[in-house]
Amino acid sequence: MPVTRHVERHFTASDIVRDVVIGMSDGLTVPFALAAGLSGAVNNAGIVVTAGLAEIAAGSIAMGLGGYLAAKSDAEHYAAEERREHEEIHEIPKEEMKEVADIFRDYGVAEEHVNAVVDAMTRRPKQWVDFMMRFELGLEKPEPKRARNSAAVIAGAYILGGLIPLTPYMLIHSTQTALLVSVCVTLVALAVFGLIKGRYTGARPLKSALQTTVIGGLAAGAAFLIARAIS
Amino acid sequence: MPVTRHVERHFTASDIVRDVVIGMSDGLTVPFALAAGLSGAVNNAGIVVTAGLAEIAAGSIAMGLGGYLAAKSDAEHYAAEERREHEEIHEIPKEEMKEVADIFRDYGVAEEHVNAVVDAMTRRPKQWVDFMMRFELGLEKPEPKRARNSAAVIAGAYILGGLIPLTPYMLIHSTQTALLVSVCVTLVALAVFGLIKGRYTGARPLKSALQTTVIGGLAAGAAFLIARAIS
Repeated sequence: MPVTRHVERHFTASDIVRDVVIGMSDGLTVPFALAAGLSGAVNNAGIVVTAGLAEIAAGSIAMGLGGYLAAKSDAEHYAAEERREHEEIHEIPKEEMKEVADIFRDYGVAEEHVNAVVDAMTRRPKQWVDFMMRFELGLEKPEPKRARNSAAVIAGAYILGGLIPLTPYMLIHSTQTALLVSVCVTLVALAVFGLIKGRYTGARPLKSALQTTVIGGLAAGAAFLIARAIS
Repeated sequence: MPVTRHVERHFTASDIVRDVVIGMSDGLTVPFALAAGLSGAVNNAGIVVTAGLAEIAAGSIAMGLGGYLAAKSDAEHYAAEERREHEEIHEIPKEEMKEVADIFRDYGVAEEHVNAVVDAMTRRPKQWVDFMMRFELGLEKPEPKRARNSAAVIAGAYILGGLIPLTPYMLIHSTQTALLVSVCVTLVALAVFGLIKGRYTGARPLKSALQTTVIGGLAAGAAFLIARAIS
């Protein structure tokens, strides 16, 4: 996230951390739940692994491309709004000046100084647009290349996360034993992931660990019950 | 999204639309791809339906609770930063005043007026904090209840989206015929969803329709090839 020079940063997780968290949350949860669910319905590790890998392929592509498009559309949205503000300060400068003035009046700035601030803005159209983008619309200029990197990191994290619950089914012949091992390994992985995620996002680590573990457990439990009910 | 009174809105999709888009994008894509993938590997509509419903249960819970926690943590993040700004303007007011002053200096406001603006801010601590939150940190106050509503809308949209590709496997005995019908129905649904999504998010509708259809198609194709290769 690009921040202008004078802006202090309290805490914001970096974009890469955010993308790893997005990919791995779902990667650890959904293939895990699907495999657990299927092993409650079909006693065949081969089918569980096939379904699991198909899910990982589908999920990583859907999430990766989804992330790519989200970042692209953020960038397009920013560019479109920026063009629009540029047009507005040329076509309806009076209204835009009034918008700036109103903002400062709301903050209790006296009239004479309001006009001075508005004057200063109008002399620097580029910074004026920047002010409107940041303050009025709350938008920051997106980083270039963000979309491609974001897609790769999300998809990679999803694949990595998804392979953890599936590995036991690849190595252990009995589906029931594999399920047990998969549940233990994945709940531990979800807790560790939650702890690390908490450290990076500023949440309390134990609370974060509890949350990821409970979500994964609930999803797997629901998938298991539904699959068993209809099989 | 709460916007303060004086802020014009260009275009931003409402939160509900955003949540429907989040849930339905994945709901239409991942269960579709999983079902297509599995039907390339196991010639058994029962297993495809079981796996598909297990996936819908897992995916809707994971995404719904994920959305819930994301909204909750946005709210907590906002509250924590707000407390911090309050502390800072009491404990290190000089530095915070300098931060405000620097922002306006950067916009070319003359020194005498900069001081007047800073003075006005310091007389209204609440608005000063609001200014720092919006301008310096780019944060807007989140809506209460957002978390619960967000979770329900995302999960509901995921379930609705996921049932579309699965229905043919429930109604048609032959897996190959069901696959064909599911592919046709779902690609049409993805295109229609993309069109509507484009209208709401301000993207060009045809481009948006193409994107959702291609992502769904790619995910399903990859899942199909992987499942077939290992079966």
